[in-house]
Amino acid sequence: MRMKVKEIAEMVGGKVIGDPDVVITGVSGIKEAKEGDLTFIAINKYKPLLKSTKASAVLVSPEINNTVNAVLIQVENPSLAFAKIMALVGPEPIKFSPGIHPTAIIGKNVEIGKDVSIQPFAVIEDNAVIGDETVIGAGVYIGHYTKIGRNCLIYPHVVIRERITIGDRVIIHPGTVIGGDGFGFATVRGVHHKIPQIGTVEIGNDVEIGSNVTIDRARFDKTYIGNGVKIDNLVQIAHNVYIGDNTIVVAQVGISGSTKIGKNVIIAGQAGIIGHITIGDNVIIGGKAGVTKNIPPNTHVTGFPARDKWEDMRFQAYVRRQPELIEKVKKLEEKIEKLEARLREIYGEENPENN
Amino acid sequence: MRMKVKEIAEMVGGKVIGDPDVVITGVSGIKEAKEGDLTFIAINKYKPLLKSTKASAVLVSPEINNTVNAVLIQVENPSLAFAKIMALVGPEPIKFSPGIHPTAIIGKNVEIGKDVSIQPFAVIEDNAVIGDETVIGAGVYIGHYTKIGRNCLIYPHVVIRERITIGDRVIIHPGTVIGGDGFGFATVRGVHHKIPQIGTVEIGNDVEIGSNVTIDRARFDKTYIGNGVKIDNLVQIAHNVYIGDNTIVVAQVGISGSTKIGKNVIIAGQAGIIGHITIGDNVIIGGKAGVTKNIPPNTHVTGFPARDKWEDMRFQAYVRRQPELIEKVKKLEEKIEKLEARLREIYGEENPENN
Amino acid sequence: MRMKVKEIAEMVGGKVIGDPDVVITGVSGIKEAKEGDLTFIAINKYKPLLKSTKASAVLVSPEINNTVNAVLIQVENPSLAFAKIMALVGPEPIKFSPGIHPTAIIGKNVEIGKDVSIQPFAVIEDNAVIGDETVIGAGVYIGHYTKIGRNCLIYPHVVIRERITIGDRVIIHPGTVIGGDGFGFATVRGVHHKIPQIGTVEIGNDVEIGSNVTIDRARFDKTYIGNGVKIDNLVQIAHNVYIGDNTIVVAQVGISGSTKIGKNVIIAGQAGIIGHITIGDNVIIGGKAGVTKNIPPNTHVTGFPARDKWEDMRFQAYVRRQPELIEKVKKLEEKIEKLEARLREIYGEENPENN
Repeated sequence: MRMKVKEIAEMVGGKVIGDPDVVITGVSGIKEAKEGDLTFIAINKYKPLLKSTKASAVLVSPEINNTVNAVLIQVENPSLAFAKIMALVGPEPIKFSPGIHPTAIIGKNVEIGKDVSIQPFAVIEDNAVIGDETVIGAGVYIGHYTKIGRNCLIYPHVVIRERITIGDRVIIHPGTVIGGDGFGFATVRGVHHKIPQIGTVEIGNDVEIGSNVTIDRARFDKTYIGNGVKIDNLVQIAHNVYIGDNTIVVAQVGISGSTKIGKNVIIAGQAGIIGHITIGDNVIIGGKAGVTKNIPPNTHVTGFPARDKWEDMRFQAYVRRQPELIEKVKKLEEKIEKLEARLREIYGEENPENN
Repeated sequence: MRMKVKEIAEMVGGKVIGDPDVVITGVSGIKEAKEGDLTFIAINKYKPLLKSTKASAVLVSPEINNTVNAVLIQVENPSLAFAKIMALVGPEPIKFSPGIHPTAIIGKNVEIGKDVSIQPFAVIEDNAVIGDETVIGAGVYIGHYTKIGRNCLIYPHVVIRERITIGDRVIIHPGTVIGGDGFGFATVRGVHHKIPQIGTVEIGNDVEIGSNVTIDRARFDKTYIGNGVKIDNLVQIAHNVYIGDNTIVVAQVGISGSTKIGKNVIIAGQAGIIGHITIGDNVIIGGKAGVTKNIPPNTHVTGFPARDKWEDMRFQAYVRRQPELIEKVKKLEEKIEKLEARLREIYGEENPENN
Repeated sequence: MRMKVKEIAEMVGGKVIGDPDVVITGVSGIKEAKEGDLTFIAINKYKPLLKSTKASAVLVSPEINNTVNAVLIQVENPSLAFAKIMALVGPEPIKFSPGIHPTAIIGKNVEIGKDVSIQPFAVIEDNAVIGDETVIGAGVYIGHYTKIGRNCLIYPHVVIRERITIGDRVIIHPGTVIGGDGFGFATVRGVHHKIPQIGTVEIGNDVEIGSNVTIDRARFDKTYIGNGVKIDNLVQIAHNVYIGDNTIVVAQVGISGSTKIGKNVIIAGQAGIIGHITIGDNVIIGGKAGVTKNIPPNTHVTGFPARDKWEDMRFQAYVRRQPELIEKVKKLEEKIEKLEARLREIYGEENPENN
């Protein structure tokens, strides 16, 4: 990579504060950056690092205007701008050429679109449909009647069982399982009888799903993942869950059966949500939170049981005053004892505790 | 599907409250049901929906007798009855015909029962045994000397390492790993030396195991999963764990090494249990609970550290009174100040704090 | 197995307390041991079992000197000594002979060392490097340009994507995914745009990684796992995480992006660590802890938010006094009421609350 700051600014629609002719030869994080590197600040926490960074240029949001050694490039969304530049300088992405590898096994009546790539040892069962330009990675299993949209990237060893529908431009990372049976049993005298899980899973467009995720098929009807939803690694999504568009689900989250999640929700890592409840649009659920009841839209909840973040913080602050409170009560007890003694003095009484 | 309510009632041994000739054309959840649908109520939470459901018939437990629009079919176990009907109306389950796919690799001295189906790219190592009518899915790996019982369904990409024993009618969902080494190291001067894990895993009959579960082999002897145990997705079961019959383990639970779980236990999602303890029969462990010591039989524990549910609730109620308590103590302080002032007045003293 | 106690003591450099000619015919845990068995005590919790064990000999640390029925063999590290003996008596470990299975698919310019074993249905992409005596299990996927060191054991169905570097003597259990894209998006007007993850993963020597683990590739630069690190099952390690040498990460832990973990750290099961923080050397993080800020070296933290273990315990003890505190405050209120009444009596006042 060898570009001038002004060329970069032009590519991302940014405004240069400083010398536009400085030469950039690499990209890096703000802490690790060295001379010649372009970096960026996406979260305010890293703002103080502007002073110490060795980077030659930094993509920043428009309100940042410090006079620092590095040249600043002001843009609306520094993360996105940096991503554009990274795509230029990163190693050539691995491409899988169109074509069906001779070891792949394709069932009967499978419809395969244009320029599809099917890698070694993939198994595509009867009546499946694979959209144009989709890549089916090595060892992927696609069940009977399952439909995969266009321009999808299904990484090695993903398992998608029968009768699932997946939209366009969906990315699924390795080891993820879609359409396993929901966890449903009817218990009669201590023995658990399997309830058939005859529903399916429907996944919208532009969804990305991490590695080793599990998304169960519905008992009936469908488990639904909306358009633009992003799911991190090792997430559990139970049967009949509904997730609205553009919601983000961070690693190791678990969502229990039949729960409905709104749009633009953020669920932070290791949070758990019980079944049969509703989470409103734009809700933020804190890391490790345990959500036990419906959450209205536009709220931020934390803790277990999860409640309003500010209420939770206020409450935690109260609880932290416990040692001080114990001390205060001890002092009050002493004072009251003295008061009682003086009053007994006035009345000429004896201390009843001495009897 | 096209059946009369009375025909359905007969199939499930139920009693009709309402018109027995109403025609049912589908099945659905109580919220989503439309005219012509059969639905059911398994948990009391959904009882109020009886009034608003558009379903034409509802499977209910015998004590429910509301006068509603829908016809009721009273049965002992509505879930199980509904499951029976669902099995009738659901899409034809995918069947894997008996036979060994030509791409499957079968080692030496492998014993394969009658009507076994071995799917593409399965690998079955030397001296393994596969029982009658069992299905080995695409890409499944069965290690040396491992024995799988009859009528099992091993979904694609399951890995079962060497010397494992699995009972009859066991279902294992995709991506699950059975018999990985237990996590055991002896640390000498900061370096962790691997302790060989020479034990095995034994899984009983009628067990169901979800997707991407991990069940480690024992250090010596065996990790044991009893008959009828049901395990959800992404569960971790460490070496030498023992799980009694008919216990239920919900998604993302972790059970540490050498812990013994009783029969008919329910462990809710994301709970964690430390190693080397004993959980009695019929125990219920709440979601996200952290169990740090032995739990006696027939108890219900919640929280972290986990304790009796009612004690925990009472205690949480006490803690929630913290803001009120702080307020009370503040008032007491003021009152005592006034009392002290009045007594000083009586004695004609000065306030020592003014000095 | 048939060895005298004195022969075992010699093998592990131990000192015999009791009859050195007792014959040992098996190995077992201290609870399950029967006559003829050798067992050991690694944790003090099990010391009382010395009296009741039916084992014929017990490996113990030098300070244990009880007079019990069993013969004692004192050694510096009983776990490690026991491991040595177990390796002798356990079943012959499964060996995978060197050679490339005819079904394996090897790309262009792949470098394969001496005595490498490549099992059925493995896929090794162009320009990958596999070190001497490494075993690549059935169905393993090795991406383009990825380098695996010598003497590694990569179990079936592991996926290692492109441009990853793995050291020598590394063990990776089944189903683990290394080098999936980091979870990074730039959100513009509610739509999440993928940030390319152009970095890699570098794993040191002597690392062991459990089953179904996920280790994401870096946004840029690398995600780093130091020498001698041991990672249990179902752990999530996000992009750009750095883990120092000999750190232990127990099952179901999640470490968020760009966090730096020191050397010799122990992170217990189900703990979670937020992104962009630093955990010092020799830190211990308790099970289920939620770490939200930097942790200085040599500390032991627990709880959520995680804080010093002793401080946390003291604080929890204070909080447990809540019911008692509520009771005390109630009594103080009563006493003050009486004091106020008596003072009103002295002054001849009426109770203002009676008005």
